[in-house]
Amino acid sequence: MCNTVLVSELIDHTLRGGWTPSGAGAAPLPTHALRWLSGRLGLDGASTPAAPASLLEVPDGALPVEARAELVELLGEHQVQTGATARLGRTGGLSYSDLLRRRDGVGLAVPDAVLLPADPEQVQRVLEVCVRHDVAVVPFGGGTSVVGGVTALRGAKRAVVALDLARLDRLVSVDPVSRIAVLQAGVRAPEAESLLAAHGFTLGHFPQSFERATIGGFAATRSAGQASAGYGRFADMVEGVRVATPVGEWRLGAAPASAAGPDLRQLAIGGEGALGVITEVAVRVRPKPTEMRYEALVLDGWQAAADAVRALAQQRVLADVTRLSDVDETAVQLELSGGVKSRALRTLLLGSRIDEPCLLVLGWEAASAAELKQRRAATMRALHGFRSLRLGPRGGEAWHAARFAGPRQRDALLDVGVCVETLETATCWSRLSELRSAVRAALVRELDRDGQPPIVMCHLSHAYETGASLYFTVLAARGADPVDQWRRAKEAATGAITERVPGHELGRGTLTHHHAVGTDHLPWLEAEIGGIGTSVLAAVKQAVDPTGILNPGKLVGP
Amino acid sequence: MCNTVLVSELIDHTLRGGWTPSGAGAAPLPTHALRWLSGRLGLDGASTPAAPASLLEVPDGALPVEARAELVELLGEHQVQTGATARLGRTGGLSYSDLLRRRDGVGLAVPDAVLLPADPEQVQRVLEVCVRHDVAVVPFGGGTSVVGGVTALRGAKRAVVALDLARLDRLVSVDPVSRIAVLQAGVRAPEAESLLAAHGFTLGHFPQSFERATIGGFAATRSAGQASAGYGRFADMVEGVRVATPVGEWRLGAAPASAAGPDLRQLAIGGEGALGVITEVAVRVRPKPTEMRYEALVLDGWQAAADAVRALAQQRVLADVTRLSDVDETAVQLELSGGVKSRALRTLLLGSRIDEPCLLVLGWEAASAAELKQRRAATMRALHGFRSLRLGPRGGEAWHAARFAGPRQRDALLDVGVCVETLETATCWSRLSELRSAVRAALVRELDRDGQPPIVMCHLSHAYETGASLYFTVLAARGADPVDQWRRAKEAATGAITERVPGHELGRGTLTHHHAVGTDHLPWLEAEIGGIGTSVLAAVKQAVDPTGILNPGKLVGP
Repeated sequence: MCNTVLVSELIDHTLRGGWTPSGAGAAPLPTHALRWLSGRLGLDGASTPAAPASLLEVPDGALPVEARAELVELLGEHQVQTGATARLGRTGGLSYSDLLRRRDGVGLAVPDAVLLPADPEQVQRVLEVCVRHDVAVVPFGGGTSVVGGVTALRGAKRAVVALDLARLDRLVSVDPVSRIAVLQAGVRAPEAESLLAAHGFTLGHFPQSFERATIGGFAATRSAGQASAGYGRFADMVEGVRVATPVGEWRLGAAPASAAGPDLRQLAIGGEGALGVITEVAVRVRPKPTEMRYEALVLDGWQAAADAVRALAQQRVLADVTRLSDVDETAVQLELSGGVKSRALRTLLLGSRIDEPCLLVLGWEAASAAELKQRRAATMRALHGFRSLRLGPRGGEAWHAARFAGPRQRDALLDVGVCVETLETATCWSRLSELRSAVRAALVRELDRDGQPPIVMCHLSHAYETGASLYFTVLAARGADPVDQWRRAKEAATGAITERVPGHELGRGTLTHHHAVGTDHLPWLEAEIGGIGTSVLAAVKQAVDPTGILNPGKLVGP
Repeated sequence: MCNTVLVSELIDHTLRGGWTPSGAGAAPLPTHALRWLSGRLGLDGASTPAAPASLLEVPDGALPVEARAELVELLGEHQVQTGATARLGRTGGLSYSDLLRRRDGVGLAVPDAVLLPADPEQVQRVLEVCVRHDVAVVPFGGGTSVVGGVTALRGAKRAVVALDLARLDRLVSVDPVSRIAVLQAGVRAPEAESLLAAHGFTLGHFPQSFERATIGGFAATRSAGQASAGYGRFADMVEGVRVATPVGEWRLGAAPASAAGPDLRQLAIGGEGALGVITEVAVRVRPKPTEMRYEALVLDGWQAAADAVRALAQQRVLADVTRLSDVDETAVQLELSGGVKSRALRTLLLGSRIDEPCLLVLGWEAASAAELKQRRAATMRALHGFRSLRLGPRGGEAWHAARFAGPRQRDALLDVGVCVETLETATCWSRLSELRSAVRAALVRELDRDGQPPIVMCHLSHAYETGASLYFTVLAARGADPVDQWRRAKEAATGAITERVPGHELGRGTLTHHHAVGTDHLPWLEAEIGGIGTSVLAAVKQAVDPTGILNPGKLVGP
């Protein structure tokens, strides 16, 4: 019953082409924001809404009759869905290109069926059936991939099914002494938090996809949450995995740390469904914090601001959330927020010595007021030498309240003809600013339309002792061929990221800090991991998936 | 010149059968310690010294003439060594069995030649020559493996060479902004520290093998240092690797964190020379600490003491060094230290409420006195609820001063007929005490000789939020067939570690927390990583080393 609701919700909001989960309400653009954007990007005022789902053409499913019969026998009639609505609901993820395709129905990769196994054992048996009938399997969790990771590609197989893990929604066990919880792969992040909260724990993993994304997806894509400085990346939290593969079930994770050869868990984490279907994940949990404080500061200029975050990281006094916007992102946030608060902030800034405001949001979560106070003091002490303007809790709390809202505005932006997309990377501190400039320049150059430049914003939201991530958000007037427009921009940005710089044997940064490879990054993967890397991945795939049914076209090239 | 000295040092002390680097002086057993041990273990008083190296029989090297000629052409005459002394110097590592074999010359796996390449390019070309001539290659760093990791097995090859990386001894670069240093694989830990100290940095990696072990060895075996709670395991420090493989050179590590597929660095880290020869490692470094404080406490009973360390780990206030001895190890340390201090401590304990003393050594290293004070206060606060006796800095400093000395006493123990060996594992907190008891019981049962029980001591020296390591030291009277005696004991202990317990799909703990697999753990590797795990490793090996020249018999079964 519960699962039925969940599935229909998924279908509902996916069919609308966008992000918003049912009940959360779409996020329209405020009038002042729309006006400002129209002027800044030179929008022509035309409304370009999505076509109704009923007009989309869905080809008949190609699932072989015998395969369907075996799958029905295994899962039950209702868990093998071949209707257009169910299949459209698992058609691609949530990249700008996915949204465009779903809006006009062109180039949709619709799976031939949707399977809804109940547990890890059924997942395992589904794979065996699909091997026998030469059917490709695309594991499907929250469907939030922004890199084509869940695109239902058939490869050379007879058919392709979406393996929706929504019914693997259990908290299997909690070990309160070791602080390890075992969660099934289909548990969505909000449910994981509420299941764990009943035991007093939190996972502390809050990526922007939080509202929809699943535990299995986090592991399969090496996700990083907004509080990664405090709780670690998802890979840091994984203690063990249970993986269904065509050659059998695989369990890994005998201890928190081991020297029993290479850490093979790291092949499952980041395997993107191409090296197995993660069915359960043992994760490290922490007591749910009782105290939280979010606040905002403004620092002066990108380089100084990045140096400040570097100081926090290298002195190991990062706030749990540490998010620095560059001058452009800060300015746009100010424009779009509008109203009284925005005017008050402008006045404050005019009266300060800050010439190039860069917004820094800091958030601490702790088990006691004393711990929070001590940790906040350590962070603030490390910022002493940097020119800053403290804005207090309001700015931080506003960010915290809206922190999952970004994707919700994409529908409204698409409606008014905006090209809106994000991309991200990471590198070491000494190359960070050069990388930001190079990517920014590539995007501006490629998306400039007759002198009308795009808006390119950047923030640093994951900092390490040795480097940090950069996250770019792009807004531009949509071109005549929007898919091609973004493809060229993405190519230019990725070229800037992967380009070899003198004296360095690898690119300027990584292809992706937390969005994974999917179909979109696959052409550049070899530039990052080398020909040996791609042949190693192919060898691993051959070992665990000899007939190549798992997520064709992702991670491992044909 | 420098290299010649280094190599002759290696040969010198390796030939003596033991550990002690030249100049550091052997560590004889104090009289009172010998007396106590003799009584406790029932030693018969017979001296069993090592046979002189000159009496060891070294078979002629089997390196094919054409291979030798090509290698000489590539490396130079003096860097292709086929004399008995050079070859004996790279015969096996430093396990108890290795020492026994080197003492009596039976069962020695002597490499057919020793190669001393000058740089990563030469290593790469050596592999190409060895592929052409079907010669196995055993990478050799500090030679400190205690699991047979550097045993010169020929496999099915025509010959086997030890690839000694001693000449890859450079600090390649330091990026002080990103705090990343690139070190060549052959740099020994003390040299790494002094090279980095010139730039104000430290690696912070201090395993017991510190005096001899190398950067490449640390990476290849997933090493963990005594200060792992503060600086992380070696795997945590690795930013990038340069690896020579028979199919070409492989570089990995574009950013501090990435989601560009599985973390393939984790295949090099822990590859044990079977998946490539690590030639350079980019490591995270930290400013050399200016303040240090080591101190000791006594806690009451293993379970309470382990709970105390768990509290430190889970509240994230571990000291950089956190080392807890169980009751047996504490008692033996007390016996062996002897003298006034020991008597004073006994008196202190008698006056306390501590019934079952467990020694806890804590060490903090910081950039300022204020930081050290604050961190120490946090650690001590978390210990408030546990019954303890503070011994102050003396006990901690004594441990710190002697922290690399353990292995040096093995020669003296072997001389008087003691079977002395260590083994280690790790598991989650909720299984930790059960694991300790099971391993302990297995060792006692197997090594009991007509009612004369062995000494089995244990300490916990690497703690994580979710679990910890256990390190066992065993002393027993040597049996008639000492190699077989230890083999049976090791089998019993490993059986206890890998045994499935009800309700848990993996063993009680990991085969090894930081000693790696080598030859000794290989028979049990499949119990830990599954048949799929071993087939994945075999597939990776096939991809990077298709003819199987790299370290035969290690990590990947035949």
